[in-house]
Amino acid sequence: MIIVMKRYEAKDKVEQIIEKLKKAGMQPVPLFGVERTVIAVIGDERILDIQQLASMDGVEKVMPVLKPYKFVSRESHPENSIIDVAGVRIGGKKAIVMAGPCSVEDEQQIVETANSVKEAGASILRGGAFKPRTGPYDFQGLKEEGLKLLAKARDATGLPVVTEVMQPKYITMVAKYADMLQVGARNMQNYDLLRDLGRCKKPVLLKRGMSSTYKELLLAAEYIVANGNPNVVLCERGIRTFVAETRNTLDLNMVPLVKELSHLPIIVDPSHGTGIRSLVGSMAKAGIAAGADGLMVEVHPRPDKAKSDADQTISLAHFKTLMQELRAVTQAVGREL
Amino acid sequence: MIIVMKRYEAKDKVEQIIEKLKKAGMQPVPLFGVERTVIAVIGDERILDIQQLASMDGVEKVMPVLKPYKFVSRESHPENSIIDVAGVRIGGKKAIVMAGPCSVEDEQQIVETANSVKEAGASILRGGAFKPRTGPYDFQGLKEEGLKLLAKARDATGLPVVTEVMQPKYITMVAKYADMLQVGARNMQNYDLLRDLGRCKKPVLLKRGMSSTYKELLLAAEYIVANGNPNVVLCERGIRTFVAETRNTLDLNMVPLVKELSHLPIIVDPSHGTGIRSLVGSMAKAGIAAGADGLMVEVHPRPDKAKSDADQTISLAHFKTLMQELRAVTQAVGREL
Amino acid sequence: MIIVMKRYEAKDKVEQIIEKLKKAGMQPVPLFGVERTVIAVIGDERILDIQQLASMDGVEKVMPVLKPYKFVSRESHPENSIIDVAGVRIGGKKAIVMAGPCSVEDEQQIVETANSVKEAGASILRGGAFKPRTGPYDFQGLKEEGLKLLAKARDATGLPVVTEVMQPKYITMVAKYADMLQVGARNMQNYDLLRDLGRCKKPVLLKRGMSSTYKELLLAAEYIVANGNPNVVLCERGIRTFVAETRNTLDLNMVPLVKELSHLPIIVDPSHGTGIRSLVGSMAKAGIAAGADGLMVEVHPRPDKAKSDADQTISLAHFKTLMQELRAVTQAVGREL
Amino acid sequence: MIIVMKRYEAKDKVEQIIEKLKKAGMQPVPLFGVERTVIAVIGDERILDIQQLASMDGVEKVMPVLKPYKFVSRESHPENSIIDVAGVRIGGKKAIVMAGPCSVEDEQQIVETANSVKEAGASILRGGAFKPRTGPYDFQGLKEEGLKLLAKARDATGLPVVTEVMQPKYITMVAKYADMLQVGARNMQNYDLLRDLGRCKKPVLLKRGMSSTYKELLLAAEYIVANGNPNVVLCERGIRTFVAETRNTLDLNMVPLVKELSHLPIIVDPSHGTGIRSLVGSMAKAGIAAGADGLMVEVHPRPDKAKSDADQTISLAHFKTLMQELRAVTQAVGREL
Repeated sequence: MIIVMKRYEAKDKVEQIIEKLKKAGMQPVPLFGVERTVIAVIGDERILDIQQLASMDGVEKVMPVLKPYKFVSRESHPENSIIDVAGVRIGGKKAIVMAGPCSVEDEQQIVETANSVKEAGASILRGGAFKPRTGPYDFQGLKEEGLKLLAKARDATGLPVVTEVMQPKYITMVAKYADMLQVGARNMQNYDLLRDLGRCKKPVLLKRGMSSTYKELLLAAEYIVANGNPNVVLCERGIRTFVAETRNTLDLNMVPLVKELSHLPIIVDPSHGTGIRSLVGSMAKAGIAAGADGLMVEVHPRPDKAKSDADQTISLAHFKTLMQELRAVTQAVGREL
Repeated sequence: MIIVMKRYEAKDKVEQIIEKLKKAGMQPVPLFGVERTVIAVIGDERILDIQQLASMDGVEKVMPVLKPYKFVSRESHPENSIIDVAGVRIGGKKAIVMAGPCSVEDEQQIVETANSVKEAGASILRGGAFKPRTGPYDFQGLKEEGLKLLAKARDATGLPVVTEVMQPKYITMVAKYADMLQVGARNMQNYDLLRDLGRCKKPVLLKRGMSSTYKELLLAAEYIVANGNPNVVLCERGIRTFVAETRNTLDLNMVPLVKELSHLPIIVDPSHGTGIRSLVGSMAKAGIAAGADGLMVEVHPRPDKAKSDADQTISLAHFKTLMQELRAVTQAVGREL
Repeated sequence: MIIVMKRYEAKDKVEQIIEKLKKAGMQPVPLFGVERTVIAVIGDERILDIQQLASMDGVEKVMPVLKPYKFVSRESHPENSIIDVAGVRIGGKKAIVMAGPCSVEDEQQIVETANSVKEAGASILRGGAFKPRTGPYDFQGLKEEGLKLLAKARDATGLPVVTEVMQPKYITMVAKYADMLQVGARNMQNYDLLRDLGRCKKPVLLKRGMSSTYKELLLAAEYIVANGNPNVVLCERGIRTFVAETRNTLDLNMVPLVKELSHLPIIVDPSHGTGIRSLVGSMAKAGIAAGADGLMVEVHPRPDKAKSDADQTISLAHFKTLMQELRAVTQAVGREL
Repeated sequence: MIIVMKRYEAKDKVEQIIEKLKKAGMQPVPLFGVERTVIAVIGDERILDIQQLASMDGVEKVMPVLKPYKFVSRESHPENSIIDVAGVRIGGKKAIVMAGPCSVEDEQQIVETANSVKEAGASILRGGAFKPRTGPYDFQGLKEEGLKLLAKARDATGLPVVTEVMQPKYITMVAKYADMLQVGARNMQNYDLLRDLGRCKKPVLLKRGMSSTYKELLLAAEYIVANGNPNVVLCERGIRTFVAETRNTLDLNMVPLVKELSHLPIIVDPSHGTGIRSLVGSMAKAGIAAGADGLMVEVHPRPDKAKSDADQTISLAHFKTLMQELRAVTQAVGREL
């Protein structure tokens, strides 16, 4: 950690801080420059309260040197992690596609979709039973009934199932039916939920919050891992920017950069990342080319009648074509689909 | 609702949409322009699924005319709402100041703060018992022990207490001790929490999410009100932008504009809105001048030792001076403190 | 155009607006709904002043139906445009790579780079002679001397040259040496520059401003085309968002969406779009997979010694490898390199 | 400057960097921590190329300690600067209001406005003669004819005149008529313009770019001052964020923070900062309460007929009322109007 003092600060202020750091077991090294004094701190700064130091008299700013997360950091675990979801391995050579409707609506819809996406090459079935909706008058999902239908579709196809869990009290129920639990973007910083998912051992799909930095995403993952569950897959699903022409701005820079910082697998959601059906295919390909370990795509037998996210959902036929196109891109970057 | 068709769309696509609208009980009026056909829809469009319509063949875009919220809209309730928090009225002529530490730390800290801020003119005591923290290794609050200390500080001073509730299962516990329940920025779209707070009757302080539009904030409030609890106070606490020099960007435009759209009171949090102690006073005054019904300010007897948010917390003496300065600004805009 | 009146507005206000619209040659159709009156306007709304209408008494909002640009719109020109830069065709089946240093530094540097990128498969040489720099104490470019060196490198290799022009008075000078004139992101809304580039006939590379919407980018292109120069290539180079871990957020959604809206070619700049050398390759591939017509990449013989943008510049060897990898991705999306 | 090395970097890489720093006349101090080596650099780091260092082998990141600007920094000039605009002093106890139409349209309009705003208490007349417009088909201003009308309005009222200059070649012409030259938000990083304004001695009103950080704004001011013109007034006019309900997000945090960093005066433009007529008054008051040295307000005799910015322009009567309200707020913060 580096502590920059305000210009021309009296020596006693520097000494107070040095005193405080020594008491905390650190080894402070003051460096007296022409304009400013800087205190370099040797030791594991993560045990210090940066804000307290920053608010001390005479301090201009505090610059941490170490990263605030440990378990999810690539420094602590240089190899890529591979997460096993009921036999499907995410993070290895094979890129994994999760596909299915935004909301589970009825048995016919979900089973038809499951059969079709499986045939096209998808490895995991997605579908929402509990739906976080911006408006209180929107369709909120079939809840446990929806989970049962997802389980039926899994039985019919063998595809593992991923679905969202919205609060701690439903973790047990959702884990009974699903193979992977999804944390939605709006819940990425719901720390009680993250902590309880850490105690559950099922794999977790952690979607990036719509205004989260990479550091915050990795700290959210750290909550889960530090509480006992190392099976976390990250998901880039678009961030909120000034661009109003798309629902979100898909931030693919995140893929190669977070892969440098962390060993966790990362998938890309081009459906939420664009919000526009005609862009889903291009951005799915771009996600794979950027190095993602997989994709999550919203697919529906009759997109025009979907009860949620209709305008970013593609049809079964469209998905089939997309999978063929993706195969070529996947190979071009040295992987398989 | 206005439906804009793609350029030169065949008449049968227009008719399909007109058919669908009629079935839903609407009165569609097609207008054939030179380049495009537009369908104006008369009727309460809120019962339609905009995304489904937008995803129909031939449709370029759908533009809603009505607002998606009802109860919180000023159109449905032209007078300002006044929310009563254990006798303190928010939304009337008097601007209300809520003050206290970020986290409750011990009895001495919270009672000393309560006495001091009361003397300086604050009307409500704030203090965090459950703390949402970005990092899993940060101090997470005293939990129920903290609630008890808040209740003690209330008994000692008579100040009503506001504190955050982080998930549905704690609502009953927090409501036992607190006079007003706070929804933090990270939870503004935690819909289960909002719904259950609607069933509880205690006043709710709803903080704006850090990437929420005004519409989303009002829809979050609508969740609470539509579920039975009209006692909602909104809070502007800064949004996330590209500006890295401050913790958040305090969006004071929100105050006068949301006051046009809604009858709910609005307060401003200059502590989170800046993240920098030396800016709190200026932005508190700016908030009042912009028309806010009150403020929420982080105050601590020894800011340098605060266990959270140290660098945006002001001292008891600083708060006292600020209240004097605020008095003049409040009067200048025709209100009182 | 659709004009939404405020709730329960008196009929005479509606009539005033109808009167005004008729005088302007429009055909207004008032639609009286339950809560609101809406006026649909038939005719070419682009001749109306939307802000004036929006500011009239009784108007809540004005929603345009037509797009504000014409020449660059795909509606007016359904086929892809192909722009010829001294024999290199941008916008066709072949994806075009522009490569070279951020700044031209000396003859050896630019000629060595030109030879090497040509051999690796680049089609156009880039290099800055006039450099817009955030700080007044940074290296500002070699100016005309740099242009002469670029011309030498073209003579040595046959590669056409693209370089930035920063203000109208230098257009003639830059056009004397360069084959394509670049408008930098900071100048995307320098309307005098755009207008004068419209009068010049050399192809223009128009970089998106760092906080520009797609509409603003297309309007900037419209300035050039409407003034007589149809040879415009657009460039996505990253936008400014809250993400501080990368220099910019590369917005690849822009590629497929702007291709729907416009017939102009689009290239992607992964160097500025990331600001980080190790991400350039991944995002170059992602750009091609998203459908870009080409790339612009910063390359330098000794990146560590580059006088500007050192940390996003790749070496000649790195570029060579990247071109091989790009070849596979280009083919996977049905194009060639 | 602090250089953080990658984890477990070999000693020879550290030595290479130390060597390079010594050659540049710096005094490097390596600190060997448990996980990482950090090199603290004593000396004026502003002569080093941060990007070059950051791109060297083994370096993780470079953290500058000193600010990149000198002349505009409060450290180099602790007292507030007071800028004299033809006798009107900006930056002192008196808050200064600049008012007038977005565009100069005709003699009657500008003279009527000038008389009225002067009577209401404005100190400087604003009006656009050269207009940067997003669309090529919008009204672009009366150009020199508009400048002449501004000069007439000054002669009629004695109010100094501020107007925008859009490119270097017009500086001489605009300076002939105007008392203060405005750099628009879109030109804040037009470095040729800034440099030439530095050589001109007329006071400059520098508007913040819509996606500029505080550092970039101060560096833009540094360009002007470093080239010889110390008479710069900064202007907060709103930034671009995800909030679509207002034209811009007025970032009032900027006022108290940039006042800490710099000695230059700062004014606030609530017209562009909101884009909505009914919000201008509230945000003007908020700007003054935040500590601004003045305001810039768009005023027009008939706002509904204004040729540009109609929906954010207030009427002469509205301006008169606003000035009365502002008087109270100005006094409440210890200043005068």
